[in-house]
Amino acid sequence: MYDWSLATKFFLHTLTFGSAIYSSGSERHFKYLPKIFNMEIFGCFALTEVSHGSNTKAMRTTAHYDPTTEELIIHSPDFEAAKFWVGNLGKTATHAVVFAQLYTPGGQCHGLHPFVVQIRDPKTLLPMPGVMVGDIGRKLGQNGLDNGFAMFHKVRIPRQDLLNRSGDITPEGTYVTHVKDARQHFSESLGSLSSGRVAIAGMSVVNLKLAVSIALRFSATRRQFGPTDEEEVPVLEYPMQQWRLLPYLAAAYALDHFSKSLFLDLVELQQGLLGKDRSARQAELGREIHALASAGKPLASWTAQRGIQECREACGGHGYLAMNRLGDLRDDNDPNCTYEGDNNVLLQQTSNYLLGLLVRRDQDGARIESPLKTVDFLEAYPNLLGHGFEASSPEDCLDSSVPLAAYEWLVCYLLRESYQKLNQEKQSGSNDFEARNNCQVYCCRPLALAFLELTVVRRFHEHVHQPDVPPPLRAVLGRLSALYALWSLNQHTALLYRGGYFSGEQAGKTVENAILALCAQLKDDAVALVDVIAPPDSILNSPIGRADGELYKNLWSAVLQQSKVLERASWWSEFSANKPVLGSLKSKL
Amino acid sequence: MYDWSLATKFFLHTLTFGSAIYSSGSERHFKYLPKIFNMEIFGCFALTEVSHGSNTKAMRTTAHYDPTTEELIIHSPDFEAAKFWVGNLGKTATHAVVFAQLYTPGGQCHGLHPFVVQIRDPKTLLPMPGVMVGDIGRKLGQNGLDNGFAMFHKVRIPRQDLLNRSGDITPEGTYVTHVKDARQHFSESLGSLSSGRVAIAGMSVVNLKLAVSIALRFSATRRQFGPTDEEEVPVLEYPMQQWRLLPYLAAAYALDHFSKSLFLDLVELQQGLLGKDRSARQAELGREIHALASAGKPLASWTAQRGIQECREACGGHGYLAMNRLGDLRDDNDPNCTYEGDNNVLLQQTSNYLLGLLVRRDQDGARIESPLKTVDFLEAYPNLLGHGFEASSPEDCLDSSVPLAAYEWLVCYLLRESYQKLNQEKQSGSNDFEARNNCQVYCCRPLALAFLELTVVRRFHEHVHQPDVPPPLRAVLGRLSALYALWSLNQHTALLYRGGYFSGEQAGKTVENAILALCAQLKDDAVALVDVIAPPDSILNSPIGRADGELYKNLWSAVLQQSKVLERASWWSEFSANKPVLGSLKSKL
Repeated sequence: MYDWSLATKFFLHTLTFGSAIYSSGSERHFKYLPKIFNMEIFGCFALTEVSHGSNTKAMRTTAHYDPTTEELIIHSPDFEAAKFWVGNLGKTATHAVVFAQLYTPGGQCHGLHPFVVQIRDPKTLLPMPGVMVGDIGRKLGQNGLDNGFAMFHKVRIPRQDLLNRSGDITPEGTYVTHVKDARQHFSESLGSLSSGRVAIAGMSVVNLKLAVSIALRFSATRRQFGPTDEEEVPVLEYPMQQWRLLPYLAAAYALDHFSKSLFLDLVELQQGLLGKDRSARQAELGREIHALASAGKPLASWTAQRGIQECREACGGHGYLAMNRLGDLRDDNDPNCTYEGDNNVLLQQTSNYLLGLLVRRDQDGARIESPLKTVDFLEAYPNLLGHGFEASSPEDCLDSSVPLAAYEWLVCYLLRESYQKLNQEKQSGSNDFEARNNCQVYCCRPLALAFLELTVVRRFHEHVHQPDVPPPLRAVLGRLSALYALWSLNQHTALLYRGGYFSGEQAGKTVENAILALCAQLKDDAVALVDVIAPPDSILNSPIGRADGELYKNLWSAVLQQSKVLERASWWSEFSANKPVLGSLKSKL
Repeated sequence: MYDWSLATKFFLHTLTFGSAIYSSGSERHFKYLPKIFNMEIFGCFALTEVSHGSNTKAMRTTAHYDPTTEELIIHSPDFEAAKFWVGNLGKTATHAVVFAQLYTPGGQCHGLHPFVVQIRDPKTLLPMPGVMVGDIGRKLGQNGLDNGFAMFHKVRIPRQDLLNRSGDITPEGTYVTHVKDARQHFSESLGSLSSGRVAIAGMSVVNLKLAVSIALRFSATRRQFGPTDEEEVPVLEYPMQQWRLLPYLAAAYALDHFSKSLFLDLVELQQGLLGKDRSARQAELGREIHALASAGKPLASWTAQRGIQECREACGGHGYLAMNRLGDLRDDNDPNCTYEGDNNVLLQQTSNYLLGLLVRRDQDGARIESPLKTVDFLEAYPNLLGHGFEASSPEDCLDSSVPLAAYEWLVCYLLRESYQKLNQEKQSGSNDFEARNNCQVYCCRPLALAFLELTVVRRFHEHVHQPDVPPPLRAVLGRLSALYALWSLNQHTALLYRGGYFSGEQAGKTVENAILALCAQLKDDAVALVDVIAPPDSILNSPIGRADGELYKNLWSAVLQQSKVLERASWWSEFSANKPVLGSLKSKL
């Protein structure tokens, strides 16, 4: 919560680099593990290249096998194939797991494989011969992490440094694999990436928590205008300020619960993998978690990004002052929308999963159900589409069961829209690639997001309504749950009307009035609710967000403690006494 | 277009500081003008304080008159009253126009007045006695501008340095004014602020133009995935990427035209002021421009902020690399949402103006019309509410006249909603302050935005359909006009359904399909359209956005030209050879 860069450096080394060696390699690579734990070597995961990120299959770094020396030759054909963006590679990594296209002596390509390649000498940090390595430069945020690039000029590594879990080379240069087709091989070699999405969803939630903590504490103490010229009220008393911030507080709670519960699901999946569980349930659980993580990361990172920006604006000028940290939070959160898969691209994984369920039912009559039950409601598709909105007053909506029912309808509606559109596209002669692309904007993308929102709402609703939650706590958590649900749902009101779930003017107004009513009910609890999720002041590290509410004292004290704050700038004389004469600054070329 | 900070420093000195002295002062202050032009003195405009921004009336700096020395005593009662955020004050200003509450010897307060106060010695840049002045510190962006703070400890200035256009003090200490009431006085003394909003709308449009230029050139050259593994297509070929970026290109064109036309309206207004035009039309023009600027600045700054973020994400990791400039654009644009009035607060000026027209018609039977004709369509209110959507296919929507008609309905609808809600609130016992606040979120705020969007759409529509526009140009500009209009309108589809303008599933789908069709039609013109608005490469200053489309060459060359890019970090030995021993880094306290 204090700063992401150090944590990221450490996890890229231990989890991403270390796990890749452990899970993509074999016993012959175990020699690296103690060195990783001792930090004798320091690692990175080198997949993306200058010209390829999302399309990992198209990576162009090559690894040619030379049977005469039993070595692999790692090579970057040109600068577009340079490894790029790799965290830890810029200044510190001594070793990398490098992904390259494997070629056997006959010239045959066996697809992308991971290799352990030494980048620098661990004693001197100087690059190894044939490796050109450096830092890609300043980023919008996370500058404590050294993202780097590397080009390889025919760098030779021992045959054994191929991480050979899915394919290996004999000393003579024959490729051997137990993987039947390249597609399966590919998904195996990249399988270890998927848990990153769950982690990023969690990181995004942390950023959102920090931002709403700052903005709500500020709003509870900042006063501006009032019913008379003499009396000013805290800005949190304004319905507008409540509406800008409290839904993000609710989102922080709901998404926090979701990301933690998804992490526990992932633990279950990993335990199954370790226990060599080859059951159909285990496979299905893997697919379901993949679908949830592929939309969970986009939803969480976007919600955080928009929430932080809203918090920044809601704190006015003071939110724009760097020391108050909202800028750093926004900048450090921003890459969550991009790495481990661009958000819009990832959402396709989720919509494909949902469409696949429908296809399977149509083709095999398979029941629509899943280990975590997130899709079980689709068994009522398409009948569920006959349902309509039944609440007639805002009071009816103050529980999240109302938006939950609306979300089930919405997901069914978007599923039907996506399914029909995809079939139309195919019937009108589009190939698969075109057909899929033409369905994304208004069908598959909202389908994936709505499905994930439904899942978040359902899990938080169930969490809040567990019998062991004390009633006073349930009351306030229930408001958060209903607020997040209605506020999210309200982004889809156009579809609720269009598809006939809503009809008449009242339905839309009812939802809006319920959102405002929940904001008003929650505003007095807002400070207590952020005190629960905020870290200690020294970690939150924002003068306007300190727990004591002494907004101006803290701000003023932080301003005056800045280095040389009351001194002249070093260039003062050029600005005043020794100004350059007009025309004296001509180019000397 | 290269960097805002220098321009801002210069304009704050000449326009904001200089104009304030010229327009709020009198002949006795003309002595300052040649010094301002020569930059013998350097100025700033000191209005906001630590604890007050939006509520300018509540500023707490005082100016007590001492008739014995004919001096005014400028004083900050405590740190909450310190002037804060003032541009140029941090390191460079020698003089400030300081706003303070004026007190005459009897202890009577005459409200906020502007005073010329010397801050630093122009020869040494050292602060004047009694002035504590410094820089507020790093901001999220625009760090080339020195935003500062100042506290005054009983600083004495001559009586003549009161800028006395609206009120003056006699040597004996009597307050004299030709302004009848404090309210009018207040609005006069702050009147010079309003043109800032027009300028900020223009600045926002510039930022948006730069961002879409970078993102569209990138998207036309970046290839990722394709129909087969062998063939990759430019990402701009994807309907998703088109939908993410092309509406912002259209917005850049439409808002650019709007902000320039509003600037010309402002020029007309200023000419009237200089010519002492006291006609009713001149007063009405002032109100209309105020309403347009108060929503134009929010619409332009928010559109730019969201557009830049979308451009950043649409360029993936390369958009997150600082050298590609999207981060700086976002950070430099961000304060446009806040200064010269928080966007959400400003929007109230516009909705109040529209509601006022309705009240005037109800009370006096006044016609609804305005000098620039932006509100004339409201004369058809409420009859216009009987209209409905008539397009039945996307082809019908490919001209902006269709969304234009929908927008007129929408503004009428939101006006009725706002008016009814405000009256309901008052009838149920809310005071004016509460009633107004309770109408903002779902009534007055969208009313102001929809009205401004309508105005932008109408002006661009008329511009495109002028008879002197050559037909081939009109075709492409017409697509931009229709795309901006439909895309903006589509944010309000829920209301169009709710109020009955849309009915049936087809209406919403028609708009969506028209948006996608326009994106597809525009994608091949996109590069030409950004070539029109982009500055030369040296000014755009973004390797991925250069006009030659040599994306990777430019990026790679910029990366390798960074200082010490291939060298070890200065701290290399602490990371490898001389690592700190575990436990050796204990606190020395």
